[in-house]
Amino acid sequence: MNRPLKVALLGCGTVGSAVLRALQEQADDLGARIGRPVEVAGVAVRRPAHHPDVPADLLTTDAHGLVTREDVDLVVEVIGGIEPARSLMLAAFEAGKSVVSANKALLAEDGVALHAAAAKAGVDLYYEAAVAGAIPILRPLRESLVGDQLSRIVGIVNGTTNYILSRMAETGAGFGEALAEATELGYAEADPTADVDGFDAAAKAAILASLAFHTPVAAVDVHREGISTVTATDVARAAEIGCTVKLLAICERVAGADGDSVAVRVHPAMIPTAHPLASVGGAFNAVFVEAEAAGQLMFYGQGAGGEPTASAVLGDLVAIARNRVTGGPGPGVTGYANLAVRPMAETPTRYHVSLDVADKPGVLAAVAQEFARHEVSISTVRQTGRGDAATLVIVTHSAPDAALSATIAALREMPAVRGVTSVLRVEGLS
Amino acid sequence: MNRPLKVALLGCGTVGSAVLRALQEQADDLGARIGRPVEVAGVAVRRPAHHPDVPADLLTTDAHGLVTREDVDLVVEVIGGIEPARSLMLAAFEAGKSVVSANKALLAEDGVALHAAAAKAGVDLYYEAAVAGAIPILRPLRESLVGDQLSRIVGIVNGTTNYILSRMAETGAGFGEALAEATELGYAEADPTADVDGFDAAAKAAILASLAFHTPVAAVDVHREGISTVTATDVARAAEIGCTVKLLAICERVAGADGDSVAVRVHPAMIPTAHPLASVGGAFNAVFVEAEAAGQLMFYGQGAGGEPTASAVLGDLVAIARNRVTGGPGPGVTGYANLAVRPMAETPTRYHVSLDVADKPGVLAAVAQEFARHEVSISTVRQTGRGDAATLVIVTHSAPDAALSATIAALREMPAVRGVTSVLRVEGLS
Repeated sequence: MNRPLKVALLGCGTVGSAVLRALQEQADDLGARIGRPVEVAGVAVRRPAHHPDVPADLLTTDAHGLVTREDVDLVVEVIGGIEPARSLMLAAFEAGKSVVSANKALLAEDGVALHAAAAKAGVDLYYEAAVAGAIPILRPLRESLVGDQLSRIVGIVNGTTNYILSRMAETGAGFGEALAEATELGYAEADPTADVDGFDAAAKAAILASLAFHTPVAAVDVHREGISTVTATDVARAAEIGCTVKLLAICERVAGADGDSVAVRVHPAMIPTAHPLASVGGAFNAVFVEAEAAGQLMFYGQGAGGEPTASAVLGDLVAIARNRVTGGPGPGVTGYANLAVRPMAETPTRYHVSLDVADKPGVLAAVAQEFARHEVSISTVRQTGRGDAATLVIVTHSAPDAALSATIAALREMPAVRGVTSVLRVEGLS
Repeated sequence: MNRPLKVALLGCGTVGSAVLRALQEQADDLGARIGRPVEVAGVAVRRPAHHPDVPADLLTTDAHGLVTREDVDLVVEVIGGIEPARSLMLAAFEAGKSVVSANKALLAEDGVALHAAAAKAGVDLYYEAAVAGAIPILRPLRESLVGDQLSRIVGIVNGTTNYILSRMAETGAGFGEALAEATELGYAEADPTADVDGFDAAAKAAILASLAFHTPVAAVDVHREGISTVTATDVARAAEIGCTVKLLAICERVAGADGDSVAVRVHPAMIPTAHPLASVGGAFNAVFVEAEAAGQLMFYGQGAGGEPTASAVLGDLVAIARNRVTGGPGPGVTGYANLAVRPMAETPTRYHVSLDVADKPGVLAAVAQEFARHEVSISTVRQTGRGDAATLVIVTHSAPDAALSATIAALREMPAVRGVTSVLRVEGLS
């Protein structure tokens, strides 16, 4: 009865090593919390020679053999990427083992099938570490807020881009310069595409939306824009209107004539400096949640790093181990709502736009007319004259994104408009 | 198999009504998330005539009869207070029903016995709503962070006192005036003792500490000081050193020569305005958590009110209902660590103290000597002369609380000290 629970660890990079260390150093505490001792059964890696710190008898290159080994109870997958992680996870389920994963890309691509396989096998699939590192956000969505109706999630879920945008705001640097600094300091990877172009945040947004709205959302459903087009001018313009630029992951439930739908998007946006997310700096993450009964909630903490991510993995590990001890799997994930995904073009957004215009009578009227023609209502206009030129800074009310982008395209063609110097969406303005 | 799960609701005040409404209006969603329909079996109240909105056939004055009724699966206790809530809860466990409670006083007084009774019966006891209203904090502590080692929790967990202190800072009013305003606006109860004297926060601190450190902590173990002694001068002095005054619930794991212990306390303190808790205003709550691997986390949201509290109750209700559907109870609460509770006198704290002194040579030396005599090290001193008098503002380093209070007592006796105008602990300074 008190046979130790055995854990198969797939992958032993930064996160895997931290998990392994904790399993060894905190074995007594973890065992007491689980109700049974916990032991590492094996560690699957590609190149055993690269892991001199791991006891040799634990290392194996046969990941599939490890996850299906009869004495293995639980599997921790921290390999990342789609394959072989997916096949290994499915093999684990088939062999009746619960899985803890930190794999946002895989969960965002194939979450529905993976949850179905886990449910069929009667085992658990938890992946708190996949979104916002150490911050407990998936379990609160899956369990704490499961009796409420969520309307909106706005998150800063990528530390690299948050660092770059924070530095741009602090130093006035352009994107390229701030990226170079982030790369040099190790905050950005040599190939920063996944972070900078928003792929990482989009995967996380898909996972958040799926859990929040009880509906399947995959990474491919997420409208995605990165931060490489954000300019020093955008950042300066944001400051002028009391805002700061952040890369936001936004998940919304939108009411429509033909029923509710979900809109999920990742893009840079200006938010007011008084917004709780505005002060989330550097490599920190934060997730802002709005629910019908609970109102506004915020979850804040470290979004990446070996130790913080290991904290989330270990929390899930203890949870599934306790489920193993007490009998059944924990509650699964429901996708019963099956909401349609609203295309970005139809998603209501707000824009900030700065224009260089000729400073002569009628220009503002002509510009305003262009907005009206696209049925975009203007919230504020600020006009600053300087010689024969003027700058118009316009913030719109909410309108379908397609109408806003069509308006911008039309403004670029207007003879009186000498240049569109900054266009960025605005979130969180009242 | 698809027989509806039946819920007994004990109490139908602000929170109970909101829970009842949600169970009726969101029955389809909740049923889909649980995997079985959910229905209200009955509502136990003292005076049925006071509840014209509740269908008459649901109302009963026989709470005991309701919780032990054979067709009842789950019990929601929102009566509050110690009795009859405790007897009803124990009767429910004995009858094999899981319980959701919002009862901080009861859980803080008798949590260990209640958890033992639930575990013995093989049922669930959840009470997310008991601490910080809608904010998911107990489940993250119980489950998400269960693989980590927590070192410290600092929370603003009482909205009434937070409102009063916020108003004192904004208007310069004294405690009495701000309390009167809070009472008039309905933010403070007619008898504000439970809030103002820190009883409410102390109960919450006991619950937080128990879960965070896996050790039994009761309300009686919590050192408690309220805010009625906080003066306008304290608030003004705080602002002068870049701080703001908050009523904090602080739970710490303290290393000692004879092993670790826990220190749990509730008292007003100055915290730097840059601290994430400093900007938590009005009736909002926030809980700041420090863990070995996860680092710093913060949870923020509405701490009270019918709807937000109902959100937490319903989250627990869906969770225990799903456990009922999938088979076993969820993980219980472990108190294996059995840490000693460190008395306040031995708990390390820091003090701010403002003194009116005679402005003549040697006074600062004499004052500093008094701190040294009690082995309290000084962090900063600011001296402001004005005529023949001077003000000394001193912030200490960390020292046992008894040494600090003995120092203050000695200062009050010094001939050169004309008055001790403000004494308050300081938290969160580097």
